[in-house]
Amino acid sequence: MLTVDLNADMGESFGPWTMGDDAALLTTVTSANIACGAHAGDPDVMHATMGLAHANGVGIGSHPGFADLQGFGRRRMHVPIASLQNSIRVQVGASLGMAKALGAKVRHLKLHGAMSNMTCEDEAMARALYEAALSVDPDLIIMTLAATAQVKAVQSLGCSYACEIFADRAYNDDATLVDRSRPGAVIHDAEVAGKRMVDMVKAQAIITDSGKHIPTPIDTICLHGDTSTAVDIAKSVRLKLENADIKVAQFAGRKG
Amino acid sequence: MLTVDLNADMGESFGPWTMGDDAALLTTVTSANIACGAHAGDPDVMHATMGLAHANGVGIGSHPGFADLQGFGRRRMHVPIASLQNSIRVQVGASLGMAKALGAKVRHLKLHGAMSNMTCEDEAMARALYEAALSVDPDLIIMTLAATAQVKAVQSLGCSYACEIFADRAYNDDATLVDRSRPGAVIHDAEVAGKRMVDMVKAQAIITDSGKHIPTPIDTICLHGDTSTAVDIAKSVRLKLENADIKVAQFAGRKG
Amino acid sequence: MLTVDLNADMGESFGPWTMGDDAALLTTVTSANIACGAHAGDPDVMHATMGLAHANGVGIGSHPGFADLQGFGRRRMHVPIASLQNSIRVQVGASLGMAKALGAKVRHLKLHGAMSNMTCEDEAMARALYEAALSVDPDLIIMTLAATAQVKAVQSLGCSYACEIFADRAYNDDATLVDRSRPGAVIHDAEVAGKRMVDMVKAQAIITDSGKHIPTPIDTICLHGDTSTAVDIAKSVRLKLENADIKVAQFAGRKG
Amino acid sequence: MLTVDLNADMGESFGPWTMGDDAALLTTVTSANIACGAHAGDPDVMHATMGLAHANGVGIGSHPGFADLQGFGRRRMHVPIASLQNSIRVQVGASLGMAKALGAKVRHLKLHGAMSNMTCEDEAMARALYEAALSVDPDLIIMTLAATAQVKAVQSLGCSYACEIFADRAYNDDATLVDRSRPGAVIHDAEVAGKRMVDMVKAQAIITDSGKHIPTPIDTICLHGDTSTAVDIAKSVRLKLENADIKVAQFAGRKG
Repeated sequence: MLTVDLNADMGESFGPWTMGDDAALLTTVTSANIACGAHAGDPDVMHATMGLAHANGVGIGSHPGFADLQGFGRRRMHVPIASLQNSIRVQVGASLGMAKALGAKVRHLKLHGAMSNMTCEDEAMARALYEAALSVDPDLIIMTLAATAQVKAVQSLGCSYACEIFADRAYNDDATLVDRSRPGAVIHDAEVAGKRMVDMVKAQAIITDSGKHIPTPIDTICLHGDTSTAVDIAKSVRLKLENADIKVAQFAGRKG
Repeated sequence: MLTVDLNADMGESFGPWTMGDDAALLTTVTSANIACGAHAGDPDVMHATMGLAHANGVGIGSHPGFADLQGFGRRRMHVPIASLQNSIRVQVGASLGMAKALGAKVRHLKLHGAMSNMTCEDEAMARALYEAALSVDPDLIIMTLAATAQVKAVQSLGCSYACEIFADRAYNDDATLVDRSRPGAVIHDAEVAGKRMVDMVKAQAIITDSGKHIPTPIDTICLHGDTSTAVDIAKSVRLKLENADIKVAQFAGRKG
Repeated sequence: MLTVDLNADMGESFGPWTMGDDAALLTTVTSANIACGAHAGDPDVMHATMGLAHANGVGIGSHPGFADLQGFGRRRMHVPIASLQNSIRVQVGASLGMAKALGAKVRHLKLHGAMSNMTCEDEAMARALYEAALSVDPDLIIMTLAATAQVKAVQSLGCSYACEIFADRAYNDDATLVDRSRPGAVIHDAEVAGKRMVDMVKAQAIITDSGKHIPTPIDTICLHGDTSTAVDIAKSVRLKLENADIKVAQFAGRKG
Repeated sequence: MLTVDLNADMGESFGPWTMGDDAALLTTVTSANIACGAHAGDPDVMHATMGLAHANGVGIGSHPGFADLQGFGRRRMHVPIASLQNSIRVQVGASLGMAKALGAKVRHLKLHGAMSNMTCEDEAMARALYEAALSVDPDLIIMTLAATAQVKAVQSLGCSYACEIFADRAYNDDATLVDRSRPGAVIHDAEVAGKRMVDMVKAQAIITDSGKHIPTPIDTICLHGDTSTAVDIAKSVRLKLENADIKVAQFAGRKG
């Protein structure tokens, strides 16, 4: 039986500002990527979000990003690799510390925003940042964007990983995402998003806008948490998958 | 044979700004209280300082403070206790993560600045913050200021702790520090500082300005790291202790 | 004819996080207190909010607070007065700079959160912070909370000021606000809030929970911007005032 | 008679951390580029530095940079131009506000670090950032790095500007700086630095490592403030210039 995980970014509120409906998403997803306080999140938000994820049996992930609160970690910064590694170590350590305090466990790591985009293009950078995370916890499962340099990095490291596709983004034939400025780049229709995911998981391939199939393991599907339709799309994707006899459950982590 | 530990605050540089001569102090002290990035320190500084402490066989401590970089954690802030607990969890987690990455270990916890001052006066607050740290790592030895509410807090928690006195500060008869604005409040003479420490460790008592003895275990002596005479005082204290047949070594942690 | 101003805090979004419905409020209020980036707001938010206020003919105010983003400037901090004065100077300067770039003008100053609360109790502190603001722009009209130490401070300074009451908060007989934990402390009913304001403006007095009248000039009414009912209450207050033949218009600033 | 200004970056301390010997430099330079709190400086540092510059009759400049304290504004960040413009407006506003409070005046603007490097290469970016600064104060004299895109930007804007060369950096034949990793890239010898400056000012040209002359007006010489030899080099440059009958005085600002 086919199995797939559903993940979403969470814990992205900060101080008096809320973002997303984490409580609702946590009833649907199986893995939560929880911000570490650098691009979003604060210690109180981390505590609340991890606690709720733990109570819901949702897998907890550390979700580090650039230390750029105003830019939400989405602006590329030219930071020496050794500094980024130290930043990752501190962010992962913060995640592990908070999880420990809650009697919970951090299962996976996913890079955020510009840090993720840059490592999708740059295998050496991906490898360095993943090594930094694994230096803090060698058992972390690294969540990688399917068919990018991130996958090559984890394969060269020999660590445990999971491959991810996006529920709501259209793909180009080279497995990159269609630019947000193009029509159809972002899928807002919950029905459509759900159907696409069933097709891709069954095919174990990214299906591009042109219909091309790019074979890849699909271990988890990314549901965005910060859009107005996030919860609807999440529920639709889950329902469609289950109706197609695809089991929704936490990924186990693959090697090689 | 009497034994005592020497500790100093370290890793208080930030970005392009350096503070203290950590490398020199690390050849003299036996325990280092390393800032966690909230009041001072950044991930690169944490990495460098912990690495050097580890290489020197110096015990590594997590040294959390208020998230107030400009104020260096020395300004009292009215923050809900639950928020402070989460801040401590994240800061201790960051310390543990970085230490793990370096193949090192965090042995102890010491609160910084205003957070320390407030908990010296408020046992419930001290207890709450120590509980938060222990929720991340129950094996931490809590460094407490001798004869303050911090000691009562660790005793009521039943955790492992160490009692600390200051090398360079004069004491009032109620075991509080003489206000910095008073003459003689801060001891700048390395000879004098060293001699006082020998007397107090031998007496196992705080000796106040008036000559009064306040009995207390003395497990560690705090050497300030950010003064111009810090390294001289540190060396003098160590030499004087050793000449008086007092062994300088890491504290083991006491209970009860 | 009686005249009163309506003010609300605005520009409190930050980076990716939005707060309040500034666009809607700006069609109702006559003065906007715009955050300066220390407790909330960022340069982009300042630009957008001031631009919209200017386009709507709403009076622009500088709204400085403690540099504590996570705590939204609501946590009391013990900062030396000279440092707070410098912080105010920089925040007011930022407001003036952005207004100038937009061809607009900063008319008034209102302190935020804990900084406001502390100065309501401490005339010397209020005076020092207002002096700092006036050192940057001596023509600023200082918005003060009616019947508090803030009023005494501006009177002793001899500067231009305006007296403010809250639309949605109940008052004790000593002119302090009923604690938020007490029933009825916060008025959520737009009808009730509107009626109270008509009564108080006509009486030129704070009317307390017990019915006592505390005489005070009432130049402006504070409408909170960050509650779900903020826009409804704002509209109701304005309508009720206008129906009672009270003109809603920017305050002129009073002296003495 | 030839005249040239001497400038240095200042006010780069932050909270408890000091950087540079501003007091000493302020007895030698004629213009001070004072950090605005984004990449360095805090309101207290701004107050102290501007006050001292004003007392010494040194021209005060606003010195904005990327909001990246840990990276000291030296790391390139990909920020939308409109956001950078707003950041500049707020930083310049802060400078103007503090100067006003001190009875002083901001005469010039100089971009810091990565923001300067990027605008040396990108005329459109330079123009946009200078326009933002001028929107706050149209009388600012823009300090530009000689023979770069910054000069083209001010010329196309038609604003007042000054051209700057470095005292302690070697030049390539295309007027770019020799990379710091190359031997001789940074001049540490105060004598050599002083002699070079006399030669270049007399030639009104950048003299490159190969001896090539690149004609340019030279209105001001940048002395670095954060190196150990900064004060020595500053004094040597000033002495050598004066001995060569070159007057050291504030630039007037040129047009066209």
